[in-house]
Amino acid sequence: MSAFRDIKDECFEANLLLPEYRLIDLTFGNVSVADRDKGVFAIKPSGVDYRTMRAEDMVVCDIADGRVVEGGMRYSSDTPTHRRLFQAFEGIRSVVHTHSRNAVAFAQAGREIPCLGTTHADYFHGPVPVTRFLNASEISEAYEWETGNVIVERFREIDPRHITAVLVRGHGPFAWGLSGAKAVESAFALEIVAEMAMKSLQLAAHAEPIPPELLDKHFLRKHGSSAYYGQPDS
Amino acid sequence: MSAFRDIKDECFEANLLLPEYRLIDLTFGNVSVADRDKGVFAIKPSGVDYRTMRAEDMVVCDIADGRVVEGGMRYSSDTPTHRRLFQAFEGIRSVVHTHSRNAVAFAQAGREIPCLGTTHADYFHGPVPVTRFLNASEISEAYEWETGNVIVERFREIDPRHITAVLVRGHGPFAWGLSGAKAVESAFALEIVAEMAMKSLQLAAHAEPIPPELLDKHFLRKHGSSAYYGQPDS
Amino acid sequence: MSAFRDIKDECFEANLLLPEYRLIDLTFGNVSVADRDKGVFAIKPSGVDYRTMRAEDMVVCDIADGRVVEGGMRYSSDTPTHRRLFQAFEGIRSVVHTHSRNAVAFAQAGREIPCLGTTHADYFHGPVPVTRFLNASEISEAYEWETGNVIVERFREIDPRHITAVLVRGHGPFAWGLSGAKAVESAFALEIVAEMAMKSLQLAAHAEPIPPELLDKHFLRKHGSSAYYGQPDS
Amino acid sequence: MSAFRDIKDECFEANLLLPEYRLIDLTFGNVSVADRDKGVFAIKPSGVDYRTMRAEDMVVCDIADGRVVEGGMRYSSDTPTHRRLFQAFEGIRSVVHTHSRNAVAFAQAGREIPCLGTTHADYFHGPVPVTRFLNASEISEAYEWETGNVIVERFREIDPRHITAVLVRGHGPFAWGLSGAKAVESAFALEIVAEMAMKSLQLAAHAEPIPPELLDKHFLRKHGSSAYYGQPDS
Repeated sequence: MSAFRDIKDECFEANLLLPEYRLIDLTFGNVSVADRDKGVFAIKPSGVDYRTMRAEDMVVCDIADGRVVEGGMRYSSDTPTHRRLFQAFEGIRSVVHTHSRNAVAFAQAGREIPCLGTTHADYFHGPVPVTRFLNASEISEAYEWETGNVIVERFREIDPRHITAVLVRGHGPFAWGLSGAKAVESAFALEIVAEMAMKSLQLAAHAEPIPPELLDKHFLRKHGSSAYYGQPDS
Repeated sequence: MSAFRDIKDECFEANLLLPEYRLIDLTFGNVSVADRDKGVFAIKPSGVDYRTMRAEDMVVCDIADGRVVEGGMRYSSDTPTHRRLFQAFEGIRSVVHTHSRNAVAFAQAGREIPCLGTTHADYFHGPVPVTRFLNASEISEAYEWETGNVIVERFREIDPRHITAVLVRGHGPFAWGLSGAKAVESAFALEIVAEMAMKSLQLAAHAEPIPPELLDKHFLRKHGSSAYYGQPDS
Repeated sequence: MSAFRDIKDECFEANLLLPEYRLIDLTFGNVSVADRDKGVFAIKPSGVDYRTMRAEDMVVCDIADGRVVEGGMRYSSDTPTHRRLFQAFEGIRSVVHTHSRNAVAFAQAGREIPCLGTTHADYFHGPVPVTRFLNASEISEAYEWETGNVIVERFREIDPRHITAVLVRGHGPFAWGLSGAKAVESAFALEIVAEMAMKSLQLAAHAEPIPPELLDKHFLRKHGSSAYYGQPDS
Repeated sequence: MSAFRDIKDECFEANLLLPEYRLIDLTFGNVSVADRDKGVFAIKPSGVDYRTMRAEDMVVCDIADGRVVEGGMRYSSDTPTHRRLFQAFEGIRSVVHTHSRNAVAFAQAGREIPCLGTTHADYFHGPVPVTRFLNASEISEAYEWETGNVIVERFREIDPRHITAVLVRGHGPFAWGLSGAKAVESAFALEIVAEMAMKSLQLAAHAEPIPPELLDKHFLRKHGSSAYYGQPDS
């Protein structure tokens, strides 16, 4: 039996949340889940149908060198991006990539998602940033790895525990979290606030962000040490 | 057996209408139902999954002082807003809060929903107003209670029996009614007319409200003392 | 047994198509079906839930004088509009009213739906017109009947066999056809082409209608005497 | 037993993907599948309901002269367009036509779909072009055949293996591929990227296409001889 059963199961379950939340079409999108003690992460295989995928199909890779530790299938082509994020963002246990349509629209427009309301503030402590385009040499050499690098570069002055998602310019969103389910929830919230922001901007082209006090209030009542949203044990 | 079984059941059933009408995602949104004779209201617990929630999980609170009268779970974080509305709007039996996407877009844009058609007039006797932003001291001291206060302030010259919904600026909609089901129907109608209004404004940026006679006609044929919509006993 | 069983059944089945095609929310919307030989039409009762409605609930009215011929429930409040259309548009057997969202948006914006593509031309032989607003005295006296009148007024120079739908200004669409199913299909096609037109106008504010030859070609290959779309017997 | 059982089955299965992917409403849309060795293709019959259609209803036609080789029903009215494409685009095995709403919006607006992101680049190696309108004589004489001709004309300098879809001006999309399933996937991807592009253009009216290196990278990692997306055998 696999020594990585727990992260393969968690990774599999989290991947199945993508179609449930309507975040993906066809085989786009993938979730990975890391075991920090063992220095590995499990990730969805490449181009496999969500309806026939099994937990044992998840591929386990080494965080440090990218080597496949377990699994007979080819891993998701975005695997090096996940690996780069596990290296750079120390606290996170899971990374999600989707092509959800409203978040992609902001990525393609090259615009960050401003924090226009409390739905956004419940999840992200400020605007969700957009990276620069990769340059020609980054694209030609180690494209997926460099995709991770432009994300890390964009977060040089942002705390990835407070803003748990990013838009890669001309591509789409990545999100992360402390578990597979939490990372997917972050990706889902991102898609929702992208839709709300787009519609708000149609109604008021210069809609203003919510006041900083309101941003803090909502983020901290769910995420701070004095959070009071949800049940105590949840 | 609970002395509040009827409002807990009605509250539970009304909360389940939120996912049925696609008004909520994840655990956003909540419904409360009051028993005016007993001076209490039942409300959804905080952050609980709609798919596993049970009628007995509803929390019962005192309208006057907010004390928990029955229930083992933490109540919805929006409970003080509901309580403030039960105090100020005397006739109402139920309050609903959602983050439905089109209504939120108006709240985030800081625009009221104009009455552009009879669908709107069937439910709301005029534009659905938007509150001001809460200020820093209101946010820091008793945020959810003050959210109720800005709603009440906005309704100083509006009859809450005729306009049964509001948009809290930068946050989202609250709606109310004479029963749990009626309050949720109001929240659902609000989302529908928000979508219709947004699309109308895209087609005609200066779309004009319907004439006052048409507004009265539609509202009163469903809500006035000489209403003739629906079956006599319904 | 009812002497109007056939039109009550057809009317009931056609009403059930409204939620199937997602043309209505709550209890909005209604379909009627006429028996021209008997001079009557069956129509949905007012404000009844589509999930519990039965064929025997359909109300049968006289086309000439509006008197209820059979049925124990109150008829749809829009019944006089249907009756006016059965009187004025001789060939039609069924009338449908919905509040479908994209068609309503055009009605609320006071804009006709231009014929921007062949999907439109497959169903409507030209733009779908919008009526004027009813005036105060029309609203106060016999509102639903006068709603029929403004439609008839708008069709003074339009053949209702070629344009089988209309937008009532500030209200929403009515459609009609040679059977209950055909009338609902017309209402469904209207909603689809409204969505397509709205999106086209967002991409090109001055999008031009298709050439008249293309309009004729598509309408006539489905509807003319030399139609060649579909199977010979259908 | 039919000598064309394999293409009739593949054609039938591919047609059923259209409602599954929500690419069609009512009876709009059709898929054909060719057997190049036998010089024939199977296509959906005209105006038949997807819910009652059977594999044996598919009509088999000769690619060279259009003659019906097998089948008792009338073929789709768009059959000559399919035939023209099978003649002109040598490598393809399947053609799909839909009226999917976002792709139609671009066709009605007369705008090509620019390549604004990697979702687009994963499927199409550049913008998806739009044809000119057919002229009056083309419409009157052999309309569906000439529809094929304007597509072929538009692809004079485009390789149909690299751009596997087109928008017919004022009409809608055609797509193609190496199998029924691949052609439908192309039509589905087209609808997705149309929606993403429309939303991107709303957020940034002058959104710029992705750099050519990024376009090449994504298209070639899925389609080139050194593709590394998906599993080796898929």
